[in-house]
Amino acid sequence: MMTIEETAAFLQGLDEILLLTHVRPDGDTVGSAAALCQALRDLGKTAYLLPNPELTATYAPYAAPYLAPEGWEPRSAVTVDIADAHLLPENALPYADSIALAIDHHSSHRPFAPRVCLDGEAAAAGEVVYEIVRLLTPVTPRIALPLYVAISTDTGCFVYSNTTAATHRIAAALLEVLDAAQVAAVNKALFRTKSKTRLAMESRMIAGMTLHDGGRVAVMEIPLSLCRELHATEADVEDLASLVSLVEGVDCGITLRELRPGVVKISVRSGFRINASDVCARLGGGGHRGAAGATVEGTLPEVKDAILAAVAAEEA
Amino acid sequence: MMTIEETAAFLQGLDEILLLTHVRPDGDTVGSAAALCQALRDLGKTAYLLPNPELTATYAPYAAPYLAPEGWEPRSAVTVDIADAHLLPENALPYADSIALAIDHHSSHRPFAPRVCLDGEAAAAGEVVYEIVRLLTPVTPRIALPLYVAISTDTGCFVYSNTTAATHRIAAALLEVLDAAQVAAVNKALFRTKSKTRLAMESRMIAGMTLHDGGRVAVMEIPLSLCRELHATEADVEDLASLVSLVEGVDCGITLRELRPGVVKISVRSGFRINASDVCARLGGGGHRGAAGATVEGTLPEVKDAILAAVAAEEA
Repeated sequence: MMTIEETAAFLQGLDEILLLTHVRPDGDTVGSAAALCQALRDLGKTAYLLPNPELTATYAPYAAPYLAPEGWEPRSAVTVDIADAHLLPENALPYADSIALAIDHHSSHRPFAPRVCLDGEAAAAGEVVYEIVRLLTPVTPRIALPLYVAISTDTGCFVYSNTTAATHRIAAALLEVLDAAQVAAVNKALFRTKSKTRLAMESRMIAGMTLHDGGRVAVMEIPLSLCRELHATEADVEDLASLVSLVEGVDCGITLRELRPGVVKISVRSGFRINASDVCARLGGGGHRGAAGATVEGTLPEVKDAILAAVAAEEA
Repeated sequence: MMTIEETAAFLQGLDEILLLTHVRPDGDTVGSAAALCQALRDLGKTAYLLPNPELTATYAPYAAPYLAPEGWEPRSAVTVDIADAHLLPENALPYADSIALAIDHHSSHRPFAPRVCLDGEAAAAGEVVYEIVRLLTPVTPRIALPLYVAISTDTGCFVYSNTTAATHRIAAALLEVLDAAQVAAVNKALFRTKSKTRLAMESRMIAGMTLHDGGRVAVMEIPLSLCRELHATEADVEDLASLVSLVEGVDCGITLRELRPGVVKISVRSGFRINASDVCARLGGGGHRGAAGATVEGTLPEVKDAILAAVAAEEA
């Protein structure tokens, strides 16, 4: 385990660096990688992001200036926000042996790199990257904006229970260098905009919600058929897992998304009573105390039974 | 206009202070008043909040420890978050002549008190109160929690365009003294909980939404009949005005709520293109650039025509 200072010093010594993001890339992995890439370039280094095949339109603009050209060969690779080697996208596997450093904030992190800079208290990998980057180079708007995206998305815009005083302190520092209109546009796009397709999906998921354990546990489902019927894009489905935990009285919200026939992605959002990470670990997944996930084989009804059994086991 | 320092010094010289909140009290007016009341008490003074007849269950717990007993007579009154004398609740009118100081953050503030401490850049009156209070007494958890409620509610939990670096810096300072579980519970209750009635109201408002001006202006309506049909409480209706601005492509969201037959409350939420305060001023209201309101006489269709005409006039 490396400190922030050791990590900054180690990065100083690298060049020709490929940054790797995780499967189903979110704002934290993309924003953190983009910010780190810009910082490394500001230091005069050559650095790129490996194009992530699952990148959605929501986050594509943040990765766009940094995508590695076809055929470029890095000397070392650094992962950001990757908790486990199996969360590397398939096109990252050829670089697995070049990974020199993993920067992460998942307390469930399973080491796969020779060096790890991990802060399990940080709400986002973006917080860890901010602390590293500010030791290396001035935090310019081009660094601050993707870091703001990283931190705001992983905290639901400062509302989830992972938000700490440090989160707000870093947000204040980022906003100091950003234009108010830029931040307003990001917040509007990421947190204050719903497509009509998204609104329709939400209303269907709410209609199909089931309550368990006296209303404290709720399950919402996203069958493949619903996505097809509404012509939903990946961006329409993104972060739908947070919807179920809005329902009054629910302190453990489960979303089951059929990724393809026979494969279901489970997302668990929980309050203080139940540890989401422990629940998901029972099905081979992991994450944080308040938000965790697992991808398992089975039909929607089978997976629903399995996750409700896992919740019941953790409650006991 | 008084500075923060002058206001703190002035408050030092007062005693037997009644704090006044505005009609249809929100988290900012209640939280700011509660925090200021606790701070004044910590200084050894006698201070109370005037019971606000429209207080909802959402914010009642923050006011509860501070409510003035029947018959108690203050020596002076201080208003918080009140932009105009006509926003005083009716039971505050007997104290109108005792108002010594108005603390506010509305740039549309129309002076009614002999002394005004106004910061039109502050996202919430709670930011202004924080800056005053920290000059007077340590910011304890009993002060920090209502201030967090004030600031987080007026910024939609740090997502609205009024959120600044200062907002995050103050939030960081408040979280430093608060228990993480307390903050998580507040965020969950205020921003991450919807009653089933609320969900039903939202889905009905979405279904009845109309789009104007090529989809950039949207109108949602809350007729009295809908509230009655769903047995909606005041808490179910609170802050429904933010819903309309979620719709993709909309940069001016208008919500019309029938308060009683022939009286409609208009709420406007806008992006950078249109100034919500100017739009509402055309109908006798006011507020901020991004969020403003007015209460006017007329039927829902009449008021809808009037506000769309006001928007068109501002666009021109």
